[in-house]
Amino acid sequence: MTHARGMKWWGWGDESVAFTHEDKPDLGPFIKRHIDLDVDQAAADRVAFEDLPIPEPSLPPSLRVALQGAVGADQVSTGPLDRLVHARGKCLRDLVRHRRGDIGRLPDVVVRPASEEEVEAIMRAALGVDAVVIPFGGGTNISGSLEPPEDETRAVISLDLGRMNRVLEVDGASRIARVQPGVFGPHLEEQLNARGWTLGHFPDSFTHSTLGGWIATRSSGMQSDKYGDVADLTRAVRGVTPAGILATRPVPHASTGPSVREMVLGSEGRLGVITEATVHVHRLPERRTILGYLFPSWSEALAAMRDIAEGEASPSVTRASDAPETKFSFATKKDPSLLDRVKSGALAAYLKRRRGYDLDAMCLSFIGYEGTKDYVAAQRKLVGEIVGRHGGLCIGSGPGELYDQKKFDTPYIRDYLLDRGALADVSETSAPWSALPALYDDVMAAGRRAFDDLGVRGYLMCHLSHSYHAGACLYFTFAFKPSGQRDSLEEYDVIKSAIQQTFVDSGATLSHHHAVGTEHARWLEEDISAPGVAMLRALFEGIDPGGNLNPGKIIGPRPEPAESSVAERRAGGTLG
Amino acid sequence: MTHARGMKWWGWGDESVAFTHEDKPDLGPFIKRHIDLDVDQAAADRVAFEDLPIPEPSLPPSLRVALQGAVGADQVSTGPLDRLVHARGKCLRDLVRHRRGDIGRLPDVVVRPASEEEVEAIMRAALGVDAVVIPFGGGTNISGSLEPPEDETRAVISLDLGRMNRVLEVDGASRIARVQPGVFGPHLEEQLNARGWTLGHFPDSFTHSTLGGWIATRSSGMQSDKYGDVADLTRAVRGVTPAGILATRPVPHASTGPSVREMVLGSEGRLGVITEATVHVHRLPERRTILGYLFPSWSEALAAMRDIAEGEASPSVTRASDAPETKFSFATKKDPSLLDRVKSGALAAYLKRRRGYDLDAMCLSFIGYEGTKDYVAAQRKLVGEIVGRHGGLCIGSGPGELYDQKKFDTPYIRDYLLDRGALADVSETSAPWSALPALYDDVMAAGRRAFDDLGVRGYLMCHLSHSYHAGACLYFTFAFKPSGQRDSLEEYDVIKSAIQQTFVDSGATLSHHHAVGTEHARWLEEDISAPGVAMLRALFEGIDPGGNLNPGKIIGPRPEPAESSVAERRAGGTLG
Repeated sequence: MTHARGMKWWGWGDESVAFTHEDKPDLGPFIKRHIDLDVDQAAADRVAFEDLPIPEPSLPPSLRVALQGAVGADQVSTGPLDRLVHARGKCLRDLVRHRRGDIGRLPDVVVRPASEEEVEAIMRAALGVDAVVIPFGGGTNISGSLEPPEDETRAVISLDLGRMNRVLEVDGASRIARVQPGVFGPHLEEQLNARGWTLGHFPDSFTHSTLGGWIATRSSGMQSDKYGDVADLTRAVRGVTPAGILATRPVPHASTGPSVREMVLGSEGRLGVITEATVHVHRLPERRTILGYLFPSWSEALAAMRDIAEGEASPSVTRASDAPETKFSFATKKDPSLLDRVKSGALAAYLKRRRGYDLDAMCLSFIGYEGTKDYVAAQRKLVGEIVGRHGGLCIGSGPGELYDQKKFDTPYIRDYLLDRGALADVSETSAPWSALPALYDDVMAAGRRAFDDLGVRGYLMCHLSHSYHAGACLYFTFAFKPSGQRDSLEEYDVIKSAIQQTFVDSGATLSHHHAVGTEHARWLEEDISAPGVAMLRALFEGIDPGGNLNPGKIIGPRPEPAESSVAERRAGGTLG
Repeated sequence: MTHARGMKWWGWGDESVAFTHEDKPDLGPFIKRHIDLDVDQAAADRVAFEDLPIPEPSLPPSLRVALQGAVGADQVSTGPLDRLVHARGKCLRDLVRHRRGDIGRLPDVVVRPASEEEVEAIMRAALGVDAVVIPFGGGTNISGSLEPPEDETRAVISLDLGRMNRVLEVDGASRIARVQPGVFGPHLEEQLNARGWTLGHFPDSFTHSTLGGWIATRSSGMQSDKYGDVADLTRAVRGVTPAGILATRPVPHASTGPSVREMVLGSEGRLGVITEATVHVHRLPERRTILGYLFPSWSEALAAMRDIAEGEASPSVTRASDAPETKFSFATKKDPSLLDRVKSGALAAYLKRRRGYDLDAMCLSFIGYEGTKDYVAAQRKLVGEIVGRHGGLCIGSGPGELYDQKKFDTPYIRDYLLDRGALADVSETSAPWSALPALYDDVMAAGRRAFDDLGVRGYLMCHLSHSYHAGACLYFTFAFKPSGQRDSLEEYDVIKSAIQQTFVDSGATLSHHHAVGTEHARWLEEDISAPGVAMLRALFEGIDPGGNLNPGKIIGPRPEPAESSVAERRAGGTLG
């Protein structure tokens, strides 16, 4: 189950899977209309692997010997493809640059430990020669959490956790399991399901990402409304740090100072290497269903999600697309499309005449339920009443089942577009319920302004992906065909930055579950304030004074003394 | 609403409230039987206030001027009683020492800011002359989180937040409220209830503790099963740190590195002064009820709570007493006692003959429900089924209502016993469900061994106070009459340490919700591991390099180089 080996170096996922428009009659015309892209013309060549400028690794012989001593010679790899696949994650910038042959600073070596003791030996070897350690799970991060700094002069070790992939123990009475960090989503569920349990964590990256990666980036999954985000699911962590083996206890709540467990969550390898986690498990539910709903407008859909989050229903999934995403969803359906049926059939007539729907404003929603038969029935009823109050109606389980089956294929669309010369990416955030309508309007306006400024036709769409008591996650997706007037990544930056800046300007967060990495680091201080950044810096520098652990992620190097800095504050610059 | 002024310097709470056995016919004999204490003989004199050796404050004139400039002269107090009340919290050791006249290192001055700006000015003044700042909410902490170090030579400022006591804003659409930190529980609920909302946080200290104190110690309340612990309730924090104003955003979830919000939770003043929090609020429930249940044994009661926590019921309160605590509860009932009725009546006959109960092993439980009428009815039914499977039965709402009315009076019992020469205290922990039965047995055995070693008759009892998916909180209470052979606090230490040591030896945590302070600090490394302590140290020292903020709490000073230390590890001692 070392899926990462099978990952494309130039794109997402398995070589054997690809997205296509050919079985989706509405999609080609939709793409042509909205981003002026002819899907029948493959446009963008990518550099052949043989032509990539892969340098020789810079690995001190003593380090090679130490690493081979730690994990065995066959688990120490300096092969070009291995180093290339471990060089970056899968953010749009990563894919574009790799496809161009701009491969950046590759790690010098990939090592694959099989145990915590081996991780400890690697850490000791690395710190002994002042090398850099970058933990690697599935390599799916889309925020730049994996790439070595361009100018890194020390040896760089990619520490691939793929061999540490077992469920070590299920404590059924406590409903927790001890799990190794390198296990991929499907393999983890397979091991748990065999004993009647599930973790219930299903991010879009599920098939190619790992438990350790989820923890290191504070991941959320599709059913996190019920099971909790990975921060809720993770009861305890173990890890190898420069200060020794960190081990927190799998207790349900503790008052032991600031939570050390929470410091590991989202730490992106800056504190060490996660070697084990104790996570919540749930019994496989008796029933599981995802129903489709339609709402007359985005504002009604949002309001319904808000009311559901307050009420006594506890659905496992709450998802609501805006009108542009609803249109896109309908355009990706196979023949005969759902939109055809809606538009041509009795349902459309009913929606328009009896319910007063404007079909252009209509929003598609999915709500999931899990539990016993009675519980699911009661939840559906409670949700149905709220949906009805907001002018919505249930369209049954067909669309939801289809969505459920296809949800992990979404990331492949990016490669499909890249192959044809178009760029697509996502930005997600969270905010209080009261802020969401204006946040949405502001992001849509900022995106459209960015498209206009660049002179490109672009498409921007959104869905609410997770609901909480006090707010929700909005997940934006955009696509455009670069103008050809400048570097396409420059144009990408204009759009992505406009959206991210609008998030932080609107009181929202820079990311709900995609992490900071290098892509979002410049908005961190606006999000968590300068003292918040100082707290992270104090933590990282205190545990890793040499900056050996995934340097440059989350927060950059300490700023020059001229700027406001912790050093200055220590000297009394701010309050002292 | 500055309740702290009304707090006794020698005991808990209001002067006007006291616990008595006089209306509880079974209690005197119960206490005589179990800890050999004659409740009719007041035994322990306490030193009169006038005889306390209160030293002059050591307050540099420049600091006094700066503080007066910050908050106004009338909010800067060096009065003996004010300093005495702010010197310590309310742990047993605090009460015993105060009553003896052993008042320790008093703060030199009490200041009462009315705004974040004033807190900032105090912090600037304090850091400017290298003074110590100890934030003070309600002064109810029972883990030694408030006392200045005995040998502190710098000026010590107690920063009383009691004037910052307002609900600043309720965002009803988002179900969050911005609240100042110094508000006491009842005043907070009063302000929220007036608008139809509740925080839902009801720790035993509720009447005398503050929101800021709850956050600074990771508090839990009686209804936290439904509303969440304070870490769940707190969506965002603002605070004054030496690095400037920390401000996190009230977003429902974020992937912005390790959670800075979580670093403030439980920080006990070591990072700065909390000046505002954004917290979840819930609409006042239509129905609220607490039902009493009886179980045939502790193991069945525990198993029932575990099953309830897994099921589709979501009660607001789950509490189950062991047999000793059940007996104590019955002994504190007013005439005619419930036990009388149970023992003499048809219920006892039914329990013994038809249900096979051993009345000596019987356990009392309270389970609370909140919500709409239908929801409460459905929850009761689900819980009832589980209770039945474990041999339990519902005894109606009477005992629960009584418990609900009296729950905040429990802390007064300690003073009642101290007045009579007996000591009582509590220790609480949490652990996975599977660990609870052995943990309970081990703690009871350790407590009994400690009583035996000391040659005292003691009573030790326990209840489960909070249930979670993966475990629960066990809350132990003990009481004994010191032997008179040695210092009573020495004997107290033997018992308290035996219990705490058993917690950490059994894989449980040193505290579920009472915090670390100084009382629990020596078990911290065993609980969160040495690297966990190193992470806390890195955080505290990075933000507060001068050690001006509540020094000595959670973790002590950096150990000498001879011992294992972060400094040593940095030099390669552990892994480098």
